[in-house]
Amino acid sequence: MKSLVFSSGHLYCSDRTSQPALIPGYALIKIIIAGVCGTDIEITKGYADFHGVLGHEFVGIVEDVADDSDNLWVGKRVVGEINIGCMKCAVCLTHGTAHCPDRQVLGIRDKDGCFAEYITLPVCNLHVVPDCVSDESAVFTEPLAAACRIREQLLIDPAKQIAVVGCGRLGLLIGATLRLTGSEVTMLARRSESLKLPEQWGFSTALVDDYSDNSFDLVVEATGNESGLRRSIRLVKPLGTLVLKSTFQNTVNINLTKLVVAEITVTGSRCGAFAPALRLLEQGLIDVESTIDEQFPLKEGVAAMQYAATQGVRKVLLNLE
Amino acid sequence: MKSLVFSSGHLYCSDRTSQPALIPGYALIKIIIAGVCGTDIEITKGYADFHGVLGHEFVGIVEDVADDSDNLWVGKRVVGEINIGCMKCAVCLTHGTAHCPDRQVLGIRDKDGCFAEYITLPVCNLHVVPDCVSDESAVFTEPLAAACRIREQLLIDPAKQIAVVGCGRLGLLIGATLRLTGSEVTMLARRSESLKLPEQWGFSTALVDDYSDNSFDLVVEATGNESGLRRSIRLVKPLGTLVLKSTFQNTVNINLTKLVVAEITVTGSRCGAFAPALRLLEQGLIDVESTIDEQFPLKEGVAAMQYAATQGVRKVLLNLE
Repeated sequence: MKSLVFSSGHLYCSDRTSQPALIPGYALIKIIIAGVCGTDIEITKGYADFHGVLGHEFVGIVEDVADDSDNLWVGKRVVGEINIGCMKCAVCLTHGTAHCPDRQVLGIRDKDGCFAEYITLPVCNLHVVPDCVSDESAVFTEPLAAACRIREQLLIDPAKQIAVVGCGRLGLLIGATLRLTGSEVTMLARRSESLKLPEQWGFSTALVDDYSDNSFDLVVEATGNESGLRRSIRLVKPLGTLVLKSTFQNTVNINLTKLVVAEITVTGSRCGAFAPALRLLEQGLIDVESTIDEQFPLKEGVAAMQYAATQGVRKVLLNLE
Repeated sequence: MKSLVFSSGHLYCSDRTSQPALIPGYALIKIIIAGVCGTDIEITKGYADFHGVLGHEFVGIVEDVADDSDNLWVGKRVVGEINIGCMKCAVCLTHGTAHCPDRQVLGIRDKDGCFAEYITLPVCNLHVVPDCVSDESAVFTEPLAAACRIREQLLIDPAKQIAVVGCGRLGLLIGATLRLTGSEVTMLARRSESLKLPEQWGFSTALVDDYSDNSFDLVVEATGNESGLRRSIRLVKPLGTLVLKSTFQNTVNINLTKLVVAEITVTGSRCGAFAPALRLLEQGLIDVESTIDEQFPLKEGVAAMQYAATQGVRKVLLNLE
């Protein structure tokens, strides 16, 4: 089958990747659309030391299942949670699969991803997409769930001041989900061009350097770069909270004095539950499609990845049909 | 009066410091004993850009008050909270004085400290020391309150695994207060000599590198150095909590990927309330005096500071009587 592979430092389209084999408990899914995420780009720079088929955001159709008891899934349009745990260890049994030490993660860790014609996933990872949600929206379920994760981790007081630093593909979804708490959310970026779409979405916006120190109770760092992190630390009030939402491939050089003296809480945040994200899409509460810049066919996957890494570009999709 | 001063990069004893003037709401306190803290040592390296009389840990006698309504305080043996807020801003009115943007902090920020014959403090900062608590114990009220602060910030689940990285003057107090929750607390250090006193106190102890990654639900960083921080991040389990309890003067170079991927919460922690710390001392629950290595007269303050900065040395006191 066709796929987009990262191996030995090279990103390339392959026509000859083996179709993944079905094993008990799993479904075979034909991909309709896949989404390019910042993590995919980081992987091509060495993050997570992953080699194989990239991609973890998708919508697809279940084409086959390993177990007869799962036959009802065949033909369903689905999205799928990306962590596959051992289901036996203390972590899986206590917290679910996302932090299992032996987990596979679709397109990120020991498991070929969805920039391909087919993937397999455990049936228990799948969620049926409501008919009213388009393919182009459904493919956002994974990043939207990641944005919603912040509300699973923190009690959001809507009287407090919230800022999201970084208005890229993930920052916008974070702002949109935090705004559903009734909070005022200010979207901050370094360049005024980045503020246009947040303004269209009705957010308060500003250039990040226009705010003075200690301006926000809750700051979400969604740039994934060191200067964004420094700015985020600067903006958070004493006793406030900083959420780290982007993965940092490289080490960062920062001064931690403020975290201690101002008693800041820093919360790392990764994957969220799919069901709430699908409900938000079903209710049409977040206009994810307006963040799509371009769709590419899979065979142009290398160009798609390059385009997604361009400054100012938000969502790039790979169309498999 | 005599004092120990840090100014323009120099630490020296002075015989000619002006005695601080009483202003409304304040008490004049004659110092009995003061304690040397890691923060004092950091200040002599440039931390907080402080210039003046050092010191913020003390026990003393109220010798005078500015207001007649405070006359009952005269002659009382007291300890004193170190933050002096404006009592007018939103921060003071919401969270108390510790995070007031215009605060003074005794011996740390815009306020001469207690390595001197006399200090002044607002009467509302003072706490009477119970008779059964010795001067040598009472001087630990401030660092013990800082150790107790962690329990003000976090709900401690005593079924979880706790480690304190660093067995110095603050690390031991942190371990001792966390142990009062019924938790098992493991004290970790780089050198086996540092584990002797924690062992005498009945702690589980180990060399920090003898534990594998992801071993503890809660890790308290009490070394204040970059390698201690790296080790602490390594030791905390996914979904666990890391408390930063030491101030870091310099920038640190660290990889934050684990904080995001493993969804670690990092909590900065500074000053705590004095009343609970005094109650613990009154009940004799923490043997603070066994951490005293040496007492010096104030005139040997420079030597005292040098000794306190020596590896393996825990508490050094300055005796003013």
